[in-house]
Amino acid sequence: MTSIPAHRIAFGDRIRDLRKAKGWASQEDFAHHAGLDRTYISGIERARRNPTLDVIIRLARALEVSPAELLATVDEPEVNR
Amino acid sequence: MTSIPAHRIAFGDRIRDLRKAKGWASQEDFAHHAGLDRTYISGIERARRNPTLDVIIRLARALEVSPAELLATVDEPEVNR
Repeated sequence: MTSIPAHRIAFGDRIRDLRKAKGWASQEDFAHHAGLDRTYISGIERARRNPTLDVIIRLARALEVSPAELLATVDEPEVNR
Repeated sequence: MTSIPAHRIAFGDRIRDLRKAKGWASQEDFAHHAGLDRTYISGIERARRNPTLDVIIRLARALEVSPAELLATVDEPEVNR
């Protein structure tokens, strides 16, 4: 099994937290609202999926936050120059 | 030809602006620095690519900004509930 990158875990946690904070208790209801499959939402929250920019924008709209807010906790400042 | 979503154009412009602001005049040099292919960087800047979260994080690291800063101009507040 390959390891899961930390940023995906942070992103999945963020989606779950915002989903619940916005009143979508069920992944299925939120998935329907966002126009995505429930298994896809589940996969993102469990950090198993690597969503594209298009999906990130779709999730931001569905959660009524900016794309930047969606990535606010996915913060990995690294100086590698 | 399919239409290109506005958020991809905003993201591509953002990458180009930050690349130049950070002193990477050439796509090729920046691509090498980021560990990506030059044609991939070109495709992102021309809004032809739909990068994944993993690639967005890689680009943020290479540009020494947070992922949220990278999406700061990709702002599409929409209330669709």
